[in-house]
This record gives sequence, structure tokens and C-alpha cells, in this order.
Amino acid sequence: MSKKIKVEEKILNLNEKYARLNEKLLKKNNIPCFNLISSPGAGKTTLLSATIQRLKNTVKPAVIVGDIATDIDAEKIRLSKAPAVQINTDGACHLSAKQVNVALKRIFTKKPDIIFIENVGNLVCPSAFQLGETAKITILSTAEGNDKPAKYPGSFAGSKAVIINKIDLLKTGAVDFDIQKVKDDIRKLNQDIIIFELSAFSGENMETWCDWLKKQADQLPV
Amino acid sequence: MSKKIKVEEKILNLNEKYARLNEKLLKKNNIPCFNLISSPGAGKTTLLSATIQRLKNTVKPAVIVGDIATDIDAEKIRLSKAPAVQINTDGACHLSAKQVNVALKRIFTKKPDIIFIENVGNLVCPSAFQLGETAKITILSTAEGNDKPAKYPGSFAGSKAVIINKIDLLKTGAVDFDIQKVKDDIRKLNQDIIIFELSAFSGENMETWCDWLKKQADQLPV
Repeated sequence: MSKKIKVEEKILNLNEKYARLNEKLLKKNNIPCFNLISSPGAGKTTLLSATIQRLKNTVKPAVIVGDIATDIDAEKIRLSKAPAVQINTDGACHLSAKQVNVALKRIFTKKPDIIFIENVGNLVCPSAFQLGETAKITILSTAEGNDKPAKYPGSFAGSKAVIINKIDLLKTGAVDFDIQKVKDDIRKLNQDIIIFELSAFSGENMETWCDWLKKQADQLPV
Repeated sequence: MSKKIKVEEKILNLNEKYARLNEKLLKKNNIPCFNLISSPGAGKTTLLSATIQRLKNTVKPAVIVGDIATDIDAEKIRLSKAPAVQINTDGACHLSAKQVNVALKRIFTKKPDIIFIENVGNLVCPSAFQLGETAKITILSTAEGNDKPAKYPGSFAGSKAVIINKIDLLKTGAVDFDIQKVKDDIRKLNQDIIIFELSAFSGENMETWCDWLKKQADQLPV
């Protein structure tokens, strides 16, 4: 085994330790936590803002936001009146379970019913780092093209649900996106995955996704 | 200095060694080589296919394609009758200079006048790994939103040019993209950067970009 692989394993093992701590913390507090993974610009922040607007009268959301630089996203989330903790990874391409552990302790003081983690915009690296989340959710926008599930299989294979976002673009004819092919390709990687097709920007089909989230919050074992 | 940082430096130093080898090889063969960096779905492959169509009668292009999995992109490039070498990174989030070194030796046998490297779809990691390229070029699509230069500064700061792709989407009203703000933000990171605004899908403004590429090929020191 090469030195590089050994070091990678060590980093992943340390991450796994914190991930297990986070999992226990979330279970103890009875709060579901969803880790949102996508390319930059697939619409994570817009989706979260639109989701918070629809959830906040029945379920109290809070958000942990990961970015390489800036706190633009946390500020946007706070505009929708949900508490948000920004983590700047200072160049790193994914959130670590240790960073999330620190953020969780801060966010618990706000007593949320549901927590979203908005990971760094990257369809590759975040899928390899467990954060102790209840489930991963991958977001793919119709502007990204048909071939993304086959080309970036890790995140789709490891997610409980996928959101196909920006379906309002399909009507413009300006994107080359065969939604049936994409869904078939996603199911080849993960036959149990739940697929939502929506537009956070136009609001189309947002209710189906939000109803599912409310059920996830209700169904948690006490 | 922590062990993690030491190992990262070692990996980067080894990469740097191969990058210098590649740089020498390219200079010796008098071939410009552009490393294309973007999120998944910003349109690298469509841009390359459209560029090859327009260049191939005057300048002979060849492409090195990096992907985590599949050879979908190399197959698409070959349809436009340019030679393409596919590198599968087997999970890794960026191309390394060593991988490119192997691919360059194969691609030189095709005697190209210009080489494009289509990096793994990732706006974060590829910008940290020099490949010995003549220049990096970052591609950003109008579907990705206004805030990407501020949130992912590394790739913009280190590029010679940036392509704002999918400008045909601006007319649909379905994307929230302030092109002037984005250009200002890019220039704050890199005041000498050249900015192209085009649509590889509709063909709009492709000529300006292709004329620039032809000039780059002509201006190389012999």
C-alpha cells in the first residue's frame, strides 16, 4: 500500500470518528439532518431559501453552510429567517465531519426541527466524506446536461434522494436535457433513490419535496 | 507543520515536477495547450466540439479528456473528428501532471497544432494542480448564478481567460445572472483576464473566441 493511500485512509478514519459523534448527537436530539451535494450553481441556496419559506410555519429549519470563501450563502439563508452557521473551508473542497460537529453544537442552541447542510459546491469530493447526516441529497440542474449521473456516479449512488432542479428551463428549449434518460441513469446507480423534479426559482413542484421533508421529520424514531 | 500539510506539499511537489516536464515538452514541440476548468455541466465538451468544428480547417486541435468515470466526452470529441485521449481518474477529483504527461506523449503522435485539456468537472480542485499547460481557462455558465467568482476565487484568479457560456439563456428570463456584476467580480480577482461571452450551444460569439485561439497558436515563440 502506498504512503498516499495510507494517509488518505487515516484522514477518512478520523472523519468517520467525528461522523459517528454527529450521528449520535442528531439521534439524541431527534433531529433529521440532510447533507445537500451538487455542482456549483445547481441551485442549493435558492432551493433552501424556497424550502425554508414553505416549511417554517410547521417545521423549524436551520442550515449549516459550507463554502471555500465568503458568507454570501449564509446571508441569503438568514434573509428567509432561518438560523444559519457559515463554515469557510479555506480552500478545501468539501466539509469535514469535525467542522460540522462544531457547527451542530452552535445550531442546536436554536432548537431546530430539521437541519440542512449545504456542502461546498462540488459533485465529487463531498460524497466521500460522511458527516453523520441522516441522508445525503444530490441536486442536479437541467442546465448541466444528460450525462452527469454516469460521469459523477459517487454522489448519486450514495444519496437517499435526488432533486432535478430548474425544470422551468426545459420549456425554453435552450437546454439539452432528456429527463427520462437522466432518471433511468440515476436508477441504474441507485434503484431505491427518490427523485424530485422541481424548480426552486419558479416554485414548480416545491410542495411535493416539502411534504416529503415534513414526513421525514415526523417519522424519526423518538 | 502538521503531517497532513506535509503530505499535501509532497504530492504537490511531485505534481510540479511532472508539470515542468510537460511544459518543456510543449515548448519543444511548439504547441500551445489550454487547461479547461469548470463545474460539471458548464459546457466544456459542447464548447470543445463547437470550437474544433471552427478551427480544424486552419489549426489542427487535439484533446486530452479527464473524467472520474466513462469515456462519454472523448467519444463526443471524436465525433467532431479531432483526436482525443481519455484519462479516467478513477474517483480522483482532478487531473494530475503525471497523467497528462502520459497522454501528451500519445497525443503528440497525431501532430496537433493546439491541445486542449478538458479537466474533471470541478471548480475547486483542478485549479491547485499545475499541468504544465500554456494557460488555464475557466468556464462559467449563466445558469450557475452571479456569485461564483467570489465563492470559487482560485480558478478565476489563476486563469488567462474566462468564458461566460450559455449566454443564450439570458434571453429566456429563466436564469438570475447579472453579467456585468460577474465580469466586475472576475476582474477584481484578476485584472488582466480576458473575458469571452458566448454560447457554444447556439454558436453566438464563437468566432471571437476561435480567432483568439488561432492568434495564440500563431504567437508562440519558435
